[in-house]
Amino acid sequence: MRSAAIVGAGLIGCSVGLALRRHGVTTYLIDADPEAARAAEARGAGLAAQPPRPADIAVITVPPGQVAPVLAEHQKLGTAHCYTDVSGVKVRLHQEVLEQGCDLTSLVSGAPVVDIGAGPPEPRADLFDGRPWALTPTDFTGNLALNCALELVALCGAVSVLLDAEAHDRAVALVSHAPHLIASLAAARLLGGDESAVRLAGQGLRDVTRTADGNPERWAEILTANAGPVADQLDDWAVQAQAVARELRDIARSGDAVRPVRLREALSLGVAGRARIRERPRDRSTTTD
Amino acid sequence: MRSAAIVGAGLIGCSVGLALRRHGVTTYLIDADPEAARAAEARGAGLAAQPPRPADIAVITVPPGQVAPVLAEHQKLGTAHCYTDVSGVKVRLHQEVLEQGCDLTSLVSGAPVVDIGAGPPEPRADLFDGRPWALTPTDFTGNLALNCALELVALCGAVSVLLDAEAHDRAVALVSHAPHLIASLAAARLLGGDESAVRLAGQGLRDVTRTADGNPERWAEILTANAGPVADQLDDWAVQAQAVARELRDIARSGDAVRPVRLREALSLGVAGRARIRERPRDRSTTTD
Repeated sequence: MRSAAIVGAGLIGCSVGLALRRHGVTTYLIDADPEAARAAEARGAGLAAQPPRPADIAVITVPPGQVAPVLAEHQKLGTAHCYTDVSGVKVRLHQEVLEQGCDLTSLVSGAPVVDIGAGPPEPRADLFDGRPWALTPTDFTGNLALNCALELVALCGAVSVLLDAEAHDRAVALVSHAPHLIASLAAARLLGGDESAVRLAGQGLRDVTRTADGNPERWAEILTANAGPVADQLDDWAVQAQAVARELRDIARSGDAVRPVRLREALSLGVAGRARIRERPRDRSTTTD
Repeated sequence: MRSAAIVGAGLIGCSVGLALRRHGVTTYLIDADPEAARAAEARGAGLAAQPPRPADIAVITVPPGQVAPVLAEHQKLGTAHCYTDVSGVKVRLHQEVLEQGCDLTSLVSGAPVVDIGAGPPEPRADLFDGRPWALTPTDFTGNLALNCALELVALCGAVSVLLDAEAHDRAVALVSHAPHLIASLAAARLLGGDESAVRLAGQGLRDVTRTADGNPERWAEILTANAGPVADQLDDWAVQAQAVARELRDIARSGDAVRPVRLREALSLGVAGRARIRERPRDRSTTTD
């Protein structure tokens, strides 16, 4: 890869530029707001200009709802040979891309997993280092586009995870979208507690609810775009919670005559599930609060 | 306070001993396992011996199910003028204490909020510094006992929070017990995800599920002891989750014709609830994983 066009000079776009610059890739920064592109150039993320000839890849990092029209526009301009984006929900995006009549052979839609936290984070060359980065090629995707996207991910220091769009959206409902809502609902319950109750909060509660600090508008957009899979997760989750609650009520009524079978199972399966996402040391230092 | 007897030389007992020794309080360490008491003495937590005359306070730090009989035994021995314990559920404890025929005037049941995490942590003199410590006096509690318990908490560096037993148990169901189960259920769901799904896990999921690493046996004991209030919390929570899930299904069916009113509300209330437990810098450094 020699050159990349980055469309959208925000946190992700600017970080992609910085990451690629480490490897000497020539990067071009394009933004509807020319000032944003110039600011990214000042950070060293690339040149604030349309590439003079088609770049190897264009990385569309505009907000999710704008990806399809912006992609169509740049395919028409011939900005690059291949295209990818970074939006978090893929089934809806593929529908929108079809509606816009985009070329599908040159597209591999992608989604880096980064932890942005609540505050306004700075673009960083190492934002993607060691992180997963989903790629969702379709039956129409050409080999050139797929290999170009794989190279982009590798140059950004991330690890490619290939899935189809439906599997991707179910996966992020499981590992990100539903857990975010679970955290929000747990945090919302604190509004019903009196002051002395809330003063007894410890680290466990702070961990469970931390992600609920995330921007509500941004999360509402993500969750509605992936509404079906998130609803499935929440409903399954609620059924499990109610089954444990039922057993706890039996225990409360009967003293210790009822054995906490479901409860013990939930706690043990929780330990086992948690073992699947064993934390790397680096994750801790990058949490923002 | 000149002297304290610590009954149970585990993490909490040993840390109480270390905290009190900072202030020159003479501490006596008593444990069914004499080796545990001697090990705590070797750490500097006090003298591995029954106090020669009644101590100002006895701090019962044995496992929850043993508190009432151990309290009765030490009240009979005259180990101290006042008594407290550190068990996490208070309504059941007060029932057990009544059944054992304990003296209630000299008792203030307590519960420090500490974050022990998953690993085997070391006793520390500063384990309680700046932390809340619930105290649940009853109508029978004498002033001497209450003031002695307040002084214990202050000398341990913690902040007393006074509540009655029912309010305490509802409070910890809200801020600790139900959130723990919520985290366990969220972590358990990962067992149903395939490998590429789990690889997309990020920091949000790791935060939400971190507390689920906790010891299942210990948590099953805590949660069954507080079964009624925890069931109330879980049920209310499940109803909220189902309401959001219903709206998400309507959105999935209708495209964007349905506005995400409940979803936005849940996300915004989550931000507001989270603001009630604003994190102190120290909390971050003490999380274990």
